[in-house]
Amino acid sequence: MSATSTQVQVLLGDRSYPIYIGSGELQSADLNAHIVGQKVLIVTNETVAPLYLERLEQQLSDRHIDSVILADGEQHKNLDTLNRIFDQLISKHHDRKTTLIALGGGVIGDMTGFAAACYQRGVAFIQVPTTLLAQVDSSVGGKTAVNHAMGKNMIGAFYQPQAVIIDTDTLSTLPDREFAAGLAEVIKYGLIIDAEFFLWLENNITALLQRDQQALAYAIEVSCKSKARIVAEDETEQGIRAILNLGHTFGHAIETFQNYRQWLHGEAVAAGMVMAAKLSQIAGQLSQADVSRIETLLQACSLPVAPPQDMASEDFMKLMVRDKKVLDGRLRLVLMQEIGRAQVSDQFSVDHLKQLLIRSCHSG
Amino acid sequence: MSATSTQVQVLLGDRSYPIYIGSGELQSADLNAHIVGQKVLIVTNETVAPLYLERLEQQLSDRHIDSVILADGEQHKNLDTLNRIFDQLISKHHDRKTTLIALGGGVIGDMTGFAAACYQRGVAFIQVPTTLLAQVDSSVGGKTAVNHAMGKNMIGAFYQPQAVIIDTDTLSTLPDREFAAGLAEVIKYGLIIDAEFFLWLENNITALLQRDQQALAYAIEVSCKSKARIVAEDETEQGIRAILNLGHTFGHAIETFQNYRQWLHGEAVAAGMVMAAKLSQIAGQLSQADVSRIETLLQACSLPVAPPQDMASEDFMKLMVRDKKVLDGRLRLVLMQEIGRAQVSDQFSVDHLKQLLIRSCHSG
Repeated sequence: MSATSTQVQVLLGDRSYPIYIGSGELQSADLNAHIVGQKVLIVTNETVAPLYLERLEQQLSDRHIDSVILADGEQHKNLDTLNRIFDQLISKHHDRKTTLIALGGGVIGDMTGFAAACYQRGVAFIQVPTTLLAQVDSSVGGKTAVNHAMGKNMIGAFYQPQAVIIDTDTLSTLPDREFAAGLAEVIKYGLIIDAEFFLWLENNITALLQRDQQALAYAIEVSCKSKARIVAEDETEQGIRAILNLGHTFGHAIETFQNYRQWLHGEAVAAGMVMAAKLSQIAGQLSQADVSRIETLLQACSLPVAPPQDMASEDFMKLMVRDKKVLDGRLRLVLMQEIGRAQVSDQFSVDHLKQLLIRSCHSG
Repeated sequence: MSATSTQVQVLLGDRSYPIYIGSGELQSADLNAHIVGQKVLIVTNETVAPLYLERLEQQLSDRHIDSVILADGEQHKNLDTLNRIFDQLISKHHDRKTTLIALGGGVIGDMTGFAAACYQRGVAFIQVPTTLLAQVDSSVGGKTAVNHAMGKNMIGAFYQPQAVIIDTDTLSTLPDREFAAGLAEVIKYGLIIDAEFFLWLENNITALLQRDQQALAYAIEVSCKSKARIVAEDETEQGIRAILNLGHTFGHAIETFQNYRQWLHGEAVAAGMVMAAKLSQIAGQLSQADVSRIETLLQACSLPVAPPQDMASEDFMKLMVRDKKVLDGRLRLVLMQEIGRAQVSDQFSVDHLKQLLIRSCHSG
């Protein structure tokens, strides 16, 4: 570890792994220690490569290093792009003892992880997330996937990395909008499992938005700890892990409606979390005061708190039944009892859902 | 089970499953007992669908059944065809509680299994193999994959089915050439692990070629038992499981050279097993008498015992280093000490290999 870093363990038996969090982690020895074999393929994108690829390659200079630079954006998270990773692996003769490194945001992490899960039926990989969203959410827990034209993350695997290396320095180059989108997932941990952390976020949101290193490192550590705890309890989402999807069923509907081309994932989740909160309120579970606190904190981050203007309630209904959270025909949603306490339910009333959608959507 | 069927268990902890072998299994209750949820997607091909799809659908009439009929042939075993399975699953609103059924040969089984491994990060599937090769080899053990333009089975997963249903009646419609190709894998079990079974095969090859039901059922049962034992010992091929690849490194080189369009997999493996036997002989491990017995038995099945005439020794060298059996740059091959005893080795002499290739290939 670097001098200032902390470590969080994801406990999954023989698939356990550490998350290193700190300034300068990209230059530390932690990455090298988790590489399997002599060959490495770094997967990154056109935005991140000019910023960090060389730094990472220098750190690995005693290995044979190949790299593939993909186009940036959720619209490229599909089987065709995945195949570009396989092209590179095969043409450069990478065998089963290779290690893939995901250098980038959630899209790069999800695709690289899935490529590692499938290449020769499974090779090692390491997550080096460079966006806040990837650092606190997608890089931890082993969910990997690509999108299908008809649905998000429809094709994937549960596949755990060897390690997650979070260099908080990489956040300095993150655009404001993407940084805020990451904060949506940070806030989510407060909402589903940690009321005290939510309060801390309310009190420290200005420092976070100014990217104060100390505040950032703390928020990332608390978020990763919550995620690690939930994943350790329920790796393949048979139960409790589903609370991590707070706001995501609404959010995925928004992203699919926009063909992944307008709002960022975290923005869609922010609006989705407000919708979930309001549905919880309509169901008589959550207070109006709590709904307001949630809206206020998200608005402080310049995140959306309502669905896009052009989405009608029927659009939501149509898209939500395609979501993975449908089990045997029943839609399941994450609802809140109070800030810091959430649970999955398929017992909500469809009338309440319709009421919410009519209230939330401008048309329809 | 049907009245005449036998059962073989694949013991893999909570991923254990039964193989049912018998005449009329397609009409038995075994299949239904292993279906998860209310929805089923049957994946089959243009050759098998007219023969058995309706029979299978009738057997499942109390479920919601969708089906997808793919083009027949190894050249279609790729990501594009896989996507057709996903298209069907998503457009018909199959959720995580669906069951995929692979009705067909090895290509259908490998693709359906991989689709099940990836769809929504993993759903249930059942193997209903209708070719001899799939019944004795590819449907058992959880290896699933698709090919990449640059290499066979490069993209896949270890993913076990809920059950394997082998109806020996389906072999009655199998073309002679495909039947013989399946026998190559049956013979393989004798070669790698069961000298007594090899002797039985020598004595009963005429009955098998006449598709005597009793002889067939016995040969399939012994083959499945051997495979189940090896897989239970080493599910993800860290060691002993690799002996199942006897002849396959040579065979894959042949298939890749022919772009999967000329020889069947079993034919390529037959030639590959003779090459492995001859390499073992050159290395001083296997007797000339044993090599002759192997050639004689394969020839009795009208299987090739030498590589295609247009393949040069350099073609083999070039294609073999791309094979998955290369680990950290070292080529590993399965060699025989005697009939019934094989082991993986990366210790063979490259000179011996070159000698073999020059002897075996017509040109180069």
